[in-house]
Amino acid sequence: MFHKIKRILIGRPLRTNELHHQKLNNLKALAILSSDALSSVAYGPEQILIVLATVSMLAFWYLLPIAVGVLVLLVVLILSYRKIIFAYPGGGGAYMVAKENLGTNFGLIAGGSLLIDYILTVAVSVSAGTDAITSAFPPFHPFTVEIAVGLVAVITLLNLRGLTESATILAYPVYLFVFALAILIVGGLYQAVTGHVPANAHTAIGTPVIGINLFLILKAFSSGCSALTGVEAISNAIPNFKEPAPKNAAFTLSIMGLILGSLFSGVVFLAYWYGIAPSATETALSQLGSSIFGRNGFYYFIQAVTAMILVLAANTGFSAFPLLAFNLAKDKFMPRAFTIRGDRLAYSNGIITLGLSSILLIIAFEGHTENLIPLYAVGVFIPFSLSQTGMIVKWIRSKPEDWKSKLIVNLLGAFICYLILIIFFVTKFEHVWIALLFIPACIFIFQKIYHHYEDVGDQLRIDLSAKFDDMENTRNLVIVPVAGITKVVAQSLVYAKSLSEDVIAVYVGSSPEEIERMEKKWEKWQTGVRLVTIFSLYRSVTASLSEFIDTIKEKTNQSGTKVTVIMPQFITKKWWHSFLHNQTGFLILARLLKTKNVNITIVPYQLEK
Amino acid sequence: MFHKIKRILIGRPLRTNELHHQKLNNLKALAILSSDALSSVAYGPEQILIVLATVSMLAFWYLLPIAVGVLVLLVVLILSYRKIIFAYPGGGGAYMVAKENLGTNFGLIAGGSLLIDYILTVAVSVSAGTDAITSAFPPFHPFTVEIAVGLVAVITLLNLRGLTESATILAYPVYLFVFALAILIVGGLYQAVTGHVPANAHTAIGTPVIGINLFLILKAFSSGCSALTGVEAISNAIPNFKEPAPKNAAFTLSIMGLILGSLFSGVVFLAYWYGIAPSATETALSQLGSSIFGRNGFYYFIQAVTAMILVLAANTGFSAFPLLAFNLAKDKFMPRAFTIRGDRLAYSNGIITLGLSSILLIIAFEGHTENLIPLYAVGVFIPFSLSQTGMIVKWIRSKPEDWKSKLIVNLLGAFICYLILIIFFVTKFEHVWIALLFIPACIFIFQKIYHHYEDVGDQLRIDLSAKFDDMENTRNLVIVPVAGITKVVAQSLVYAKSLSEDVIAVYVGSSPEEIERMEKKWEKWQTGVRLVTIFSLYRSVTASLSEFIDTIKEKTNQSGTKVTVIMPQFITKKWWHSFLHNQTGFLILARLLKTKNVNITIVPYQLEK
Repeated sequence: MFHKIKRILIGRPLRTNELHHQKLNNLKALAILSSDALSSVAYGPEQILIVLATVSMLAFWYLLPIAVGVLVLLVVLILSYRKIIFAYPGGGGAYMVAKENLGTNFGLIAGGSLLIDYILTVAVSVSAGTDAITSAFPPFHPFTVEIAVGLVAVITLLNLRGLTESATILAYPVYLFVFALAILIVGGLYQAVTGHVPANAHTAIGTPVIGINLFLILKAFSSGCSALTGVEAISNAIPNFKEPAPKNAAFTLSIMGLILGSLFSGVVFLAYWYGIAPSATETALSQLGSSIFGRNGFYYFIQAVTAMILVLAANTGFSAFPLLAFNLAKDKFMPRAFTIRGDRLAYSNGIITLGLSSILLIIAFEGHTENLIPLYAVGVFIPFSLSQTGMIVKWIRSKPEDWKSKLIVNLLGAFICYLILIIFFVTKFEHVWIALLFIPACIFIFQKIYHHYEDVGDQLRIDLSAKFDDMENTRNLVIVPVAGITKVVAQSLVYAKSLSEDVIAVYVGSSPEEIERMEKKWEKWQTGVRLVTIFSLYRSVTASLSEFIDTIKEKTNQSGTKVTVIMPQFITKKWWHSFLHNQTGFLILARLLKTKNVNITIVPYQLEK
Repeated sequence: MFHKIKRILIGRPLRTNELHHQKLNNLKALAILSSDALSSVAYGPEQILIVLATVSMLAFWYLLPIAVGVLVLLVVLILSYRKIIFAYPGGGGAYMVAKENLGTNFGLIAGGSLLIDYILTVAVSVSAGTDAITSAFPPFHPFTVEIAVGLVAVITLLNLRGLTESATILAYPVYLFVFALAILIVGGLYQAVTGHVPANAHTAIGTPVIGINLFLILKAFSSGCSALTGVEAISNAIPNFKEPAPKNAAFTLSIMGLILGSLFSGVVFLAYWYGIAPSATETALSQLGSSIFGRNGFYYFIQAVTAMILVLAANTGFSAFPLLAFNLAKDKFMPRAFTIRGDRLAYSNGIITLGLSSILLIIAFEGHTENLIPLYAVGVFIPFSLSQTGMIVKWIRSKPEDWKSKLIVNLLGAFICYLILIIFFVTKFEHVWIALLFIPACIFIFQKIYHHYEDVGDQLRIDLSAKFDDMENTRNLVIVPVAGITKVVAQSLVYAKSLSEDVIAVYVGSSPEEIERMEKKWEKWQTGVRLVTIFSLYRSVTASLSEFIDTIKEKTNQSGTKVTVIMPQFITKKWWHSFLHNQTGFLILARLLKTKNVNITIVPYQLEK
């Protein structure tokens, strides 16, 4: 039943060699690796406006200088990530770079931040995508949470199927988004130039505003930095490029920076020029689209591709999270389960963890994940900063050719990243303080897990040169709990007798009459197996069996006897039948396994109907 | 971990002989068995008003004639249940009476209705109790659902602990409730007589009302019948009375009828006289209390004991549901799990099922379970009707002494019950249609379960006189999947070798190099066990193992070899460590058990740290 549903949803299992590492040409790589970064344009400018709106609409002209600041930051980031690309052609995730250059704990800080970051990528992007849909179709607004959760569920399923195969399809929405925004910007500029926009739609640059101060400007700037989330994606995926991979990746990164910068500038300028004000029910991009084109077909096209690219951006979280979890798990910082590829070659556990976590976040915030954007941005800038710092250490240590110029670039990058982190914690402490709890908690847990695996490894290690001790005198005692005389019991007895000379059947009765009846029947049956009957004041077979095993163990302690309990298990024809047979019995005996240290053999009994 | 929490919440396990059947004296029995019936006074009269209010406040005087109708019905029910008490001194639940006299299917109709009924008892009573609380403390009104769910959770836990021990404590709230309502009624009447109530508070009896018709009056009447839910409780619990049990039970039933009738009449009369109108935020009883006494201490006392008795009424569901489920399960109509007494001698599965179902109902109806009252009443009157019908059949069949007068009483009872059912379905179809789906569905499921158990019984039955076939030539092949060379593997091999001569270790590698490395190590180890290595294109050990088992089985088919797979299981020191070891491996091998029909032995390996 479950199995069938799973097959339908996930598809047939794949062989390991079906895992083909398809190399991407630059154009396709650009599309696939930049959806996260480019889609940030859909909410970045609006984030700045939201902060400015807390002062007055008059303050909206500050959008322009703030955007210039963001663009400068973008250039610095692109330059310093180009350095990382050439230094780590195998893919320089922040976890790797920080771990290698700054030590394990800094690596774990980066890793922990990134895990949160990817969860937030999914929650924020999908919520923003849902906003694009509900802006276009206001009647859907009350169903924001349902739509967002549904989208995450679909992305999760697609990823469990193994989405990478169909990568080409994923490229189109990105091209379409760039195309749509380009038309939007050109159209908007044309109308602005031809004077179709009322002159009083925006305040003049330099208009004095009461209540504006450096704190607010920095706060707005840090909000705008959310438009830069995702620029690191290309540097993590260098092996996917055609040779010479680092050069191609660096080139693609620059092109992406150029596109991101252009779209961001265009949207920011138009938002200023058209005097767009943030609204709870319509995104800034939607307002811009309907101001420029009216609600015609092209407006809906913009909304559709915006929603699509945001969903794709969420999807990048689904590529990155399981891979990072895999790397952490390989290094023993996360449960080993994250290293297992599922039937469809995807790291299913990572995908499911990410899907569930982001669904929980969306539900907890009722789809208003704009409150999460600051935290998301912090989650991005912590690894940014650590990567840059790691590079600085690397240059100083290894001093390669031309290392000073490289050092300067990364120094600048690190400086700006730390500055932005400080701005975040100063201006948005109420949104980001949780990171100060969560990241240390992550590291604590990572370390705990690591030490457990190390401990286990120590306990299990074996000296190959020592002689294998056969323990020839091992005796086996097989216990068969019986509840009556049935074919299942017969099968269990036959099996038990084939395993050992010492087989004991145990019957637990709740009255002396019951026990006498059973003993008589047993005698008549002539199995050749001794029946031990226990009169129990408790109803529990486990408790009686447990005591019985204690007695047995006491008696046979010196001889090194191993005790095996035989547990018949009904294998039912129909899935729902399994609810009708005591699953509890199995759970209870599993407790015996744990507390009494006995072996338990499950003997399947196939029911015919 | 789970175990510890369970112990704290549920308490230590009890012995079966701690199950003492404490006999109740009449006074205590009255209290314990009538909380369900008496508490109905808290919502019954209001239900009539709600229907009348749909016409006009002028129609409120109809409350009085309708109440007379309900009282007549009460008398008939009490009389006919007295007959049932003497005919079924062992406890005459509707399921038993209907099954015995009308056949299994009618028994199942009664059983199915009662199961719903008990779930609704809990949901409705707890919601009404919560209303009593929020009427007294309006600021709690927004938290209705949370309070109600919390109450159900507490009752569930108390019942899992085994509530019956503390039965004496449960008696007091009932006495207090009767006392409080008596004071309320006396106080109200005094004020009414002394003219403290404005004369225009109520309309005169006989005032003509536009829009009233027979349909509405019948609808209001059927609503009032909800005040009679719970009158059957005493007849189900006769064995709990002191000897002569039937006589004592019948006497107690009559007293209960008297009290119920008096309280109901008093509340109805005062509600009419004070012109109480139904309100969404305050119960009629609360309005009455505050009109008569103001919001003084005594008012709060009334609200408190009302809430308490309603919670107690819910608790009766928790006594009845698990017992009925037990009876149905004993007759193979419900899963056997319902026959198992938990650690504290309560039928835990029934209690948990009931608790969860009623919590789901409360959440689904957002605590407004007044919409469920009609369905609840139907759920009560279907078994009422079937009991009466069963008694009619019994009298006609067995013709005991004085059978004609007995027959007349039950005929009258049956007639009125069917009449009320018809009124329900005619006047409140929109609330009760679901019963027409749910009850047949119940019976369908009951029968399905029954046939499955019968089928299984047929398959398992053994002929004791036939010779026990030992199958001397059974060979055992033990397969030990190994992932490396560790102490766990060593332990598994020693155990495997003690079970059989034929032990094969299986290693699944994903590259030829891996396999070569393993083979070399194995050779060096000198265990005397043959290692089979499998190169797998899949990652899954299960798939490879599964194929391997198929091959083995093919080869050994004729010789009747039994295959056992050894599964080491880490037993961790700390509960959270268990998440760090592949639980999936265990689940996957459980699939082998099912599909490949092999025995699986779990060998515990205790980790020291």
